[in-house]
Amino acid sequence: MEGFMMLPSLIVALIYRESFAMIASFVASALICFFVGLFLAGKKPERQDFYALEGLVFASVIWMLLSLFGSLPFLISGYVPSFVDALFEATSGFTTTGASVLGNVENLPHSLLFWRSFTLLIGGMGMLVFVLRFMPQFGHKGLYIMRAELPGPYSGKVESRVSSSIHLLYIIYLSMTVLLVFFLAIGGVPLFESFLLAFGAAGTGGFGIKENNLAHYGSNYVQMVMAIGMLVFGMNFNFFYLIAVGKWRQVKKSEELKWYLGIIAGAVVLISLQIFRLYESILQMMQDVFFTVTSVITTTAYTTVDINAWPTFCRVVLLILMFSGAMSGSSTSGFKVARVAVFVKTIRQEIRHAINPSRSVPIQFDGRQLDNNTQRSIIYYFICYFSVFFVLLLLLSPFAENFSGVFNAVIATLNNIGHSLDLLGPSLDYKELPNMAKLIMTLAMVMGRLEIFPVLVLFSPSTYRKT
Amino acid sequence: MEGFMMLPSLIVALIYRESFAMIASFVASALICFFVGLFLAGKKPERQDFYALEGLVFASVIWMLLSLFGSLPFLISGYVPSFVDALFEATSGFTTTGASVLGNVENLPHSLLFWRSFTLLIGGMGMLVFVLRFMPQFGHKGLYIMRAELPGPYSGKVESRVSSSIHLLYIIYLSMTVLLVFFLAIGGVPLFESFLLAFGAAGTGGFGIKENNLAHYGSNYVQMVMAIGMLVFGMNFNFFYLIAVGKWRQVKKSEELKWYLGIIAGAVVLISLQIFRLYESILQMMQDVFFTVTSVITTTAYTTVDINAWPTFCRVVLLILMFSGAMSGSSTSGFKVARVAVFVKTIRQEIRHAINPSRSVPIQFDGRQLDNNTQRSIIYYFICYFSVFFVLLLLLSPFAENFSGVFNAVIATLNNIGHSLDLLGPSLDYKELPNMAKLIMTLAMVMGRLEIFPVLVLFSPSTYRKT
Repeated sequence: MEGFMMLPSLIVALIYRESFAMIASFVASALICFFVGLFLAGKKPERQDFYALEGLVFASVIWMLLSLFGSLPFLISGYVPSFVDALFEATSGFTTTGASVLGNVENLPHSLLFWRSFTLLIGGMGMLVFVLRFMPQFGHKGLYIMRAELPGPYSGKVESRVSSSIHLLYIIYLSMTVLLVFFLAIGGVPLFESFLLAFGAAGTGGFGIKENNLAHYGSNYVQMVMAIGMLVFGMNFNFFYLIAVGKWRQVKKSEELKWYLGIIAGAVVLISLQIFRLYESILQMMQDVFFTVTSVITTTAYTTVDINAWPTFCRVVLLILMFSGAMSGSSTSGFKVARVAVFVKTIRQEIRHAINPSRSVPIQFDGRQLDNNTQRSIIYYFICYFSVFFVLLLLLSPFAENFSGVFNAVIATLNNIGHSLDLLGPSLDYKELPNMAKLIMTLAMVMGRLEIFPVLVLFSPSTYRKT
Repeated sequence: MEGFMMLPSLIVALIYRESFAMIASFVASALICFFVGLFLAGKKPERQDFYALEGLVFASVIWMLLSLFGSLPFLISGYVPSFVDALFEATSGFTTTGASVLGNVENLPHSLLFWRSFTLLIGGMGMLVFVLRFMPQFGHKGLYIMRAELPGPYSGKVESRVSSSIHLLYIIYLSMTVLLVFFLAIGGVPLFESFLLAFGAAGTGGFGIKENNLAHYGSNYVQMVMAIGMLVFGMNFNFFYLIAVGKWRQVKKSEELKWYLGIIAGAVVLISLQIFRLYESILQMMQDVFFTVTSVITTTAYTTVDINAWPTFCRVVLLILMFSGAMSGSSTSGFKVARVAVFVKTIRQEIRHAINPSRSVPIQFDGRQLDNNTQRSIIYYFICYFSVFFVLLLLLSPFAENFSGVFNAVIATLNNIGHSLDLLGPSLDYKELPNMAKLIMTLAMVMGRLEIFPVLVLFSPSTYRKT
């Protein structure tokens, strides 16, 4: 599969008449993928049944393998001579992070740049499949919970229903990406760059392709198209599925959507109130703020302005958006708006409980009562997330001069943001880090992408104990 | 009561033959307390029954009133002309925080310095009463949970049993403080300063009384006495009660004690491994590290060395200790070791649950199974804490130039540390802040002291709804 995914980049290499070495690198990388794939496909597993545990292990392994083989074009072409750097870059793509250890990317061949951004698209799409395939019972609800407890092996019926909806999702996702390319191209962005930008928005990864990021495209139209593009790709893809099958009314009822738009509107207002003095034109300000807010909440992290000129208050608002992330069922990272909503409601519930211990009022979500187990697993996810956050702070701190560098690096990788925007102060220069630090960050990106548990399960000895 | 508490400071003023104005300020402050107290004591409540809700509201109000009247000596004497500054300083004392908005404290009269540090002692003692009086059913267990659900009004029996154990606790607490004063004084610390330092350790507040804090006392003996003093005051006071009544064996079985000593030992080793190159003498290093670790985990925040010369890794370790705090049933703040232990066990449980969803293994604590409700309320406390942390970051950020200033201020006040040690970078100068920021920090100190809920309940409109 991954070998096939390299074909578009090969075509780019041919179109731009790149060196033989470059073309050969893609051919070689694809062939390695094919042969390893053929070899592995020849091995039949002893047991065919597939439980939750296998799902979690499978997800972590698949993301790591994707990244491992995805690093081949960087390595073989010689443009990224270090294996760790190539792995970092590929993982950053497939996890839709967008962090980079490459220096001046404008000098890279078109085909490699294309491959780098294409991994974002694949990663984003992979995430949607992961969500739908591994938690079908939550697939069509507003709230999707990573750690859904699968009752047992999949039955064929569910399999085929899921399979057909996945195909429809592929089509929706790719059509939306193509639509974004179209809107960017008619706004004057060169076609090649339109593709890269659209891949970044679709995968909510946002690899920078210009020295000054999206400020390079001064046009208000282009910036607004990108902002709206990111906003839309931060939505739950079940919505587009429901719209495609004509169930528009279910989307309107979604409580998560209201929270998502509400948080964005709230953040825009809060930030605007603090910075309107810095601008002559209110419209220009609204555009910059709207772009930044959608870019940060979707963990894409494209930038058009220097956020460090904004007051601390604005940076704290953006930090909270980084933790929140956009909607569940999208390729964004972070907690997800649905969880944040449950989080806020839980706190209200706890205060009420303190006031009146004898009365317990269950939480409502999407008009339905949220059962205790779901609420519990959402809240427990937060504490697991914070623990991993602190452990990563500890692991990365030996490589940083100051605290802001470590904090920025952890949030940029664990929340798959990539570009930390220097919210807390100066960031680390990823290029300059030792290999060990890069590997820790690589692992953090995979953990963030898969919402922590699959990776913890992969490395837990009791997973491999026979029971 | 508070009027009586001002008498020792009045005696100090007389001993040091301070100005008539200074003596008169304490007399006037005490008289105001007496008369207001007499007036309020004359009012009899319509209903005598006392539920959990009243307990929470009562706790917040009592801490605010204590601080309000405690600010009188600062104000009336004219040494702290601003009301907000005086309130900040008094709240900082009664909440055992130790943050200060005063400039050069070495110039203050002895009686005011004494009062300032004496509030730490009262605050620490008040906390123990609060723990014992409002959650008697948890009083003698290893794990105490703030939000204990009281089943109904207190019965007379419980009242008298609790009352006698509180008296014993007072005696233990004061004896230990006097013992610490003794050990400091024989080590060459002037008697007056021995009192102030002992109050700081007992209340785990640690108001600085010298320009260069505890580095002022170069003696290894004095620094070790203080370190051990802080370590002991960070322990659950039920232990000392149990030892006093001859139940030594119950203390040895305490799981929280093992965690507490384990965390301290672990932190000392981790930090030592990073900084041993900075020292010529290993013993000197061990002493500095041990002092810093106990000072930080007990949220006392006395300092003997410049921690900013230590690598980032050490500062992250200290940051984690700041969040953790010492044992439950002590006057330290933060999460408390018992909660941290449940936290860690919950994460292990969640990973096991992910691996095998059908098997659910309950958590053990202190050799007993932890019931779901207790575990749930501990975990939910964490998320409430983090939400309040983020809200405070937002509220204080308009007053700060950079992120480290806001973060340091929030952790210093919400965790009642006082002195943030500049762990994240430059801190705010509290003196220079506008009144609004000081008031927010004052509220944060009270919230931290009472573990958030009492203050949230106090400001929640539904508390006052008649049901």
